[in-house]
Amino acid sequence: MSQTVAHDDLSAFRRDLHRHPEPAWCEFYTTARIVDELESRDLTAVHYGPEILGAERMNVPDDDELAEWFERARDAGAREDVLAEIEGGYTGAVAVLERGEGPVVGVRVDIDALPILESDDGDVHAPAGEGFRSEHEGYMHACGHDAHATFGLGLVDEILESDFEGTLKVFFQPGEEQIVGGQPMAESELMDDVEYFLAAHVGLDHPTGEVICGIDGFLAVSHFHAEFEGEPSHAGGHPEQGRNTVQAAAAAIQNLYGIPRHADGPTRVNAGVVGGGTATNIIPEECFVEGEVRGGTTELMEYMDEKAHRVIESAADMHEVDVDIETLGRAPSATSDQELAGPIAEIAGEVDGVTNVIERDELGGSEDATYMMQAVQDNGGYATYVGVGTDHPGGHHTSTFDVEEESLDIGVDFLTAAVLEIAERNP
Amino acid sequence: MSQTVAHDDLSAFRRDLHRHPEPAWCEFYTTARIVDELESRDLTAVHYGPEILGAERMNVPDDDELAEWFERARDAGAREDVLAEIEGGYTGAVAVLERGEGPVVGVRVDIDALPILESDDGDVHAPAGEGFRSEHEGYMHACGHDAHATFGLGLVDEILESDFEGTLKVFFQPGEEQIVGGQPMAESELMDDVEYFLAAHVGLDHPTGEVICGIDGFLAVSHFHAEFEGEPSHAGGHPEQGRNTVQAAAAAIQNLYGIPRHADGPTRVNAGVVGGGTATNIIPEECFVEGEVRGGTTELMEYMDEKAHRVIESAADMHEVDVDIETLGRAPSATSDQELAGPIAEIAGEVDGVTNVIERDELGGSEDATYMMQAVQDNGGYATYVGVGTDHPGGHHTSTFDVEEESLDIGVDFLTAAVLEIAERNP
Amino acid sequence: MSQTVAHDDLSAFRRDLHRHPEPAWCEFYTTARIVDELESRDLTAVHYGPEILGAERMNVPDDDELAEWFERARDAGAREDVLAEIEGGYTGAVAVLERGEGPVVGVRVDIDALPILESDDGDVHAPAGEGFRSEHEGYMHACGHDAHATFGLGLVDEILESDFEGTLKVFFQPGEEQIVGGQPMAESELMDDVEYFLAAHVGLDHPTGEVICGIDGFLAVSHFHAEFEGEPSHAGGHPEQGRNTVQAAAAAIQNLYGIPRHADGPTRVNAGVVGGGTATNIIPEECFVEGEVRGGTTELMEYMDEKAHRVIESAADMHEVDVDIETLGRAPSATSDQELAGPIAEIAGEVDGVTNVIERDELGGSEDATYMMQAVQDNGGYATYVGVGTDHPGGHHTSTFDVEEESLDIGVDFLTAAVLEIAERNP
Amino acid sequence: MSQTVAHDDLSAFRRDLHRHPEPAWCEFYTTARIVDELESRDLTAVHYGPEILGAERMNVPDDDELAEWFERARDAGAREDVLAEIEGGYTGAVAVLERGEGPVVGVRVDIDALPILESDDGDVHAPAGEGFRSEHEGYMHACGHDAHATFGLGLVDEILESDFEGTLKVFFQPGEEQIVGGQPMAESELMDDVEYFLAAHVGLDHPTGEVICGIDGFLAVSHFHAEFEGEPSHAGGHPEQGRNTVQAAAAAIQNLYGIPRHADGPTRVNAGVVGGGTATNIIPEECFVEGEVRGGTTELMEYMDEKAHRVIESAADMHEVDVDIETLGRAPSATSDQELAGPIAEIAGEVDGVTNVIERDELGGSEDATYMMQAVQDNGGYATYVGVGTDHPGGHHTSTFDVEEESLDIGVDFLTAAVLEIAERNP
Repeated sequence: MSQTVAHDDLSAFRRDLHRHPEPAWCEFYTTARIVDELESRDLTAVHYGPEILGAERMNVPDDDELAEWFERARDAGAREDVLAEIEGGYTGAVAVLERGEGPVVGVRVDIDALPILESDDGDVHAPAGEGFRSEHEGYMHACGHDAHATFGLGLVDEILESDFEGTLKVFFQPGEEQIVGGQPMAESELMDDVEYFLAAHVGLDHPTGEVICGIDGFLAVSHFHAEFEGEPSHAGGHPEQGRNTVQAAAAAIQNLYGIPRHADGPTRVNAGVVGGGTATNIIPEECFVEGEVRGGTTELMEYMDEKAHRVIESAADMHEVDVDIETLGRAPSATSDQELAGPIAEIAGEVDGVTNVIERDELGGSEDATYMMQAVQDNGGYATYVGVGTDHPGGHHTSTFDVEEESLDIGVDFLTAAVLEIAERNP
Repeated sequence: MSQTVAHDDLSAFRRDLHRHPEPAWCEFYTTARIVDELESRDLTAVHYGPEILGAERMNVPDDDELAEWFERARDAGAREDVLAEIEGGYTGAVAVLERGEGPVVGVRVDIDALPILESDDGDVHAPAGEGFRSEHEGYMHACGHDAHATFGLGLVDEILESDFEGTLKVFFQPGEEQIVGGQPMAESELMDDVEYFLAAHVGLDHPTGEVICGIDGFLAVSHFHAEFEGEPSHAGGHPEQGRNTVQAAAAAIQNLYGIPRHADGPTRVNAGVVGGGTATNIIPEECFVEGEVRGGTTELMEYMDEKAHRVIESAADMHEVDVDIETLGRAPSATSDQELAGPIAEIAGEVDGVTNVIERDELGGSEDATYMMQAVQDNGGYATYVGVGTDHPGGHHTSTFDVEEESLDIGVDFLTAAVLEIAERNP
Repeated sequence: MSQTVAHDDLSAFRRDLHRHPEPAWCEFYTTARIVDELESRDLTAVHYGPEILGAERMNVPDDDELAEWFERARDAGAREDVLAEIEGGYTGAVAVLERGEGPVVGVRVDIDALPILESDDGDVHAPAGEGFRSEHEGYMHACGHDAHATFGLGLVDEILESDFEGTLKVFFQPGEEQIVGGQPMAESELMDDVEYFLAAHVGLDHPTGEVICGIDGFLAVSHFHAEFEGEPSHAGGHPEQGRNTVQAAAAAIQNLYGIPRHADGPTRVNAGVVGGGTATNIIPEECFVEGEVRGGTTELMEYMDEKAHRVIESAADMHEVDVDIETLGRAPSATSDQELAGPIAEIAGEVDGVTNVIERDELGGSEDATYMMQAVQDNGGYATYVGVGTDHPGGHHTSTFDVEEESLDIGVDFLTAAVLEIAERNP
Repeated sequence: MSQTVAHDDLSAFRRDLHRHPEPAWCEFYTTARIVDELESRDLTAVHYGPEILGAERMNVPDDDELAEWFERARDAGAREDVLAEIEGGYTGAVAVLERGEGPVVGVRVDIDALPILESDDGDVHAPAGEGFRSEHEGYMHACGHDAHATFGLGLVDEILESDFEGTLKVFFQPGEEQIVGGQPMAESELMDDVEYFLAAHVGLDHPTGEVICGIDGFLAVSHFHAEFEGEPSHAGGHPEQGRNTVQAAAAAIQNLYGIPRHADGPTRVNAGVVGGGTATNIIPEECFVEGEVRGGTTELMEYMDEKAHRVIESAADMHEVDVDIETLGRAPSATSDQELAGPIAEIAGEVDGVTNVIERDELGGSEDATYMMQAVQDNGGYATYVGVGTDHPGGHHTSTFDVEEESLDIGVDFLTAAVLEIAERNP
């Protein structure tokens, strides 16, 4: 298979996104850039705005934060007409190409970034050394979603040049890091007719040249925000009159990590963010704990979630404070269908740059592409989650994460080959 | 004793300060207003800027925060020439009046505010109802230091009108709430010759009309900031690779509150502020705990401080994270001299508006006026801490704290009477 | 005042008791020995058995434990007729001497011992060196109640030899260490007519020769036993099926020590005994925590007790286990009447061996003599708690506690002088 | 295959053992009964006493406890000559039958019981209803090792009656529940020549009629005993002078359960037994925590063990107490060889009573048969761990665990068939 998309174009696009990392529901610049590129192609349709999000969005930032990111996008030159459609956090886009008789193949790539401060050490971190480090200090594409969006655009270009017959839908999904984008997109009408579904991820500790054709072991996950409310008091004068939320939160955290392990499979818990109190001499009136639970199955996640609620509520009771627990985001577990992974594995070795093919592997993390995988599977279709190796210097979600850009080409070609193989086998 | 300062002037000054609450080392507007008033009086000298702060200042905010408050003061119309002297956080002022032979009497009033959101319920909170609520959202004069500064200014006016012989120094001290202003001011040269010393506080759960002539029971206090640093990791993918600072902080907090009580007297501990982590799915790399310990004596405070360090360091060890503990502010215990409290109690009943005189009482809180009291006592002088009752609807450090303004007049007259009595007895 | 009781007799009696330390409600040998001595004197009455305990006894050991101590007493030669009366744990005795017109004076001495392993180092611990170390391994007179009982017997002897007019009642109280004996004895009919009341304690960090005439600062106290019940499970096979009582108890203990200090005065909390679980590989089904709370006033103790219940119950909820909390013993706070302390202080200096008289002091511990003091005070009488110094090498409740036996004579003479003074002043 | 051992004999033997449950190193009666039976058969040798234990035994009970169980065994009629050999806790036995040329086949059955109080509800618990409930109150065969020992004896009988050629060694292993018997027995010389090795377990949630031919998923395990030592003090008088071991233990327990989960596989932790303190009013000087860690691999167990040590030591530091951590028992992970599991699965269906054959399954618990499996595998031999289903009303390690006795016959026949198949295939 010969490459039809220029490496330099892929690299340039990816680096533009890398310089503009945006968190969930704030991917204004990213969405506008993607839409702008897509609308310059000869596609059947480019969808964006509320229509592509079929369920209520969880955990949308408040108006101030949305407005701040919106202005940044505008300042960075995002197209005003696109911005107008996605204002309020209706980010993401879907490219549709209908061409002749054939299957409906969906491909999902995610586009959001993380609240991580990017390394500025040019010696070890290429984006710093080569001038495309994050322009949004404190935010970073530390998981490769800039590469994913690039995969999606490159795939569109290659399929346009190919003899593909059928319908291709590329879902540029917002809010994966906070697992809030998958469910609304899974419930949009655009998903209803998808028969074959691919989701893709770069890296995952696999080297450049390695691809994985069916990934399992997704941990189901649920994010929570617990807001404790007590009573302030002067810590010297009347400690007994306070109702101490920080003490309650500490008791909760200690015991959250102590939820019993489960014989049926892996479980996880993390109190990822905590904040509370106003001054050293005031018994803290307010405190929050934001965290997550996971499980090897949706049932295991629910086991953890129920226990976590109990721990948090008991800790509040213990210290006579109130607590309100909100679910911020959630994703089920899912399984890659061997009906897709097998055929893809058969042809993956022929893709340029692919030096090693792994038919199946385990992830050990979470993903809300699982909502979309489940939606397709529930409709009788097939889904698989594929991986594109890249030599990444730092781990995912660290300040020195980066992708070797050769893997941009490999990813585009691998996805293209997979889509073509599916179309060929299912005419 | 007849009043020489108009009630309306006192009220107007206090309300102006109330509208502009400023935290430690950021009292730019407050200082400029005080200096402006003082310089319009016929005083021997008005000191401000670095010269009045004789020791290194602890816990100065960073440049950004200083700059923000500086700009706010400028916007509110603070005098530029004063601002130029106190830029960088050299807040506070000292008024000096030398008149004839007589003792050197120092009076300390503090001027800073708290990071508390003021009630906007005009039905229960007069500043909201009558239009002088805080203009700095999230900050509030919730401990009456606006009244204290007013006491100081009124005292100057009344002594100017009186037949006082001797030297009066009024210390408008910054940063009491964070116990950072007392030590630098205690170590300024202006304190060296003070023979008699009064510090004053309004409220303290005493009603309008009640005054206290000698307050003891100051808890010695030390504020700390513990900064934990660990290792981030993906909470689903590799929980074992993280070194979790939030878990360490929770273990520390749980055990800080469990430091053994002490038979020798009261102790206190509070983890007043906590914050850490970046995302629900990242093992939190950084977390801080800011808190305080107190003791009925300086020794008891030191007992608590030593134990607190041990708890925090062991909690860090336990979870394999690093921790750095900084002392933010500190104040010793102190005792009011009966040599001052007794004579003041004898004449307090004659002051207008005073309906009840309490010779001695206990505070149960902390104060860094104790540094100044100790400095005078160490030089062979006498010091006392006096109280001026006021009917306050909410407790100190709550969002509905307020002073009944009748107590402004009482406080001014009471302090004036005390200063005159001291001068008379010690010619 | 000249001594009428031989030092050697006092020493021999005390050493006999010291060799036979017995815990609460198990003072079978001790009671029988005391009764045997008392019945050999010319007293009006010697009471023992159920009649001297006017309220339900708390925390009586189970039948097996009672039986074991009963047999030990029998083996040690206790009088069978006395044992028959006190079987089931009705320990303690009251000596009554009625002689002529005069006041009814009650004196309380306690007789029980502690579950502490006595030192066997004869070089530092006289009972080990001189052959009267505990014969009940693991139990020890580590608080001097052997001396107290000796005070009581010596007092009877001296009053018998004196010209005392009135009624003397000496209460040999069981179960003080577990604060279970004071209330039943306070509610016996024998207390009803007591007009003047003394309770006595040896040591308390005062040296031989020092006596204290009125002790205050008793901490009110309440002992609790919390029994957690969960669900066992194999810790490897099904950790999620267990309901873990040890985890619940640990959460409770951590947070018990963190109950907020109180501005109104001293508080205490201790989780003194804990036990639970059956094997390393079984999620522990049962666990108990036995502890206590104290307060400088009865209200402060109740504050702590209420919080402790909440903490324990919430910790149980948190880990889905049941808990049952029982109150084991309780004692209020109390105050010594100056009406007694003053007169006693006036004459104490004349007592043989007394080199220093302290009129009033603070204890900082708890005592259930307070029930008896309150009962007398509630009836319009007067009560005081007195101290008899002794050079004790180890602290109270440690394995090397001991009394210097010269203080036996001082204590007897001091109490005798106090009783005679009371009788003289209140004919 | 026809049965040669009478069901009634198997049942009677099992019930005799069931009535006499004995914990690790105290299986005096059990060993004597087994030896007595074996010596009545025509075997090549019956080994017992120190010679069968080739490594130092961990966690041997103290002399008092050994003596108590020894006396109980004697009282129950155990043979004196056997008791003399195994005094001191050298329990267990090995039966050896050498017959002709052929492979050396080892079979391990364990014989110890658990510290669990057996149900006395005859309606739901057959041993209670049919009169063979535990005679050692508080101890119980709650894991079926009575059945295992019966398997071993029945196997000997059937092989004696068969045409087996080769050497059979049946290892009656002590101390499995505390994972202390496997290593010493694995290191005895009797293991050196074993070429094929079977270990067997009854139940494991499989019904009667089901057998498993190769079990994996053993969790490596390590048991620890942590002994904290602090300083006692009177909890009311001087709480600050104590160094509180119960507080340290609680901090340790809270954080032990919070050791991070590991991405590489399952981990476990349990603080199974805790005990400390002497009285409610004494700051507890001594406390112990006994627990275990496990891992899906030996490495994961070691990860947990290292973290557990750190947590315990930091908790001790935090509360200024000393701690000593001892390893009580340990077992590695292990894998069943398909070279044995496969052939056994082929013939298992022919065994009387077997209705379902499972070739391979996962355990999810720990076992120290893994030491013996590893020893054989290290010598180039093969090992497998087989299961014999039984309808058990309560779970393993619960008070109502029981085996359906039909499974005794199935187990004997299944093991016999396996041994004969191995001998036939490896002449």
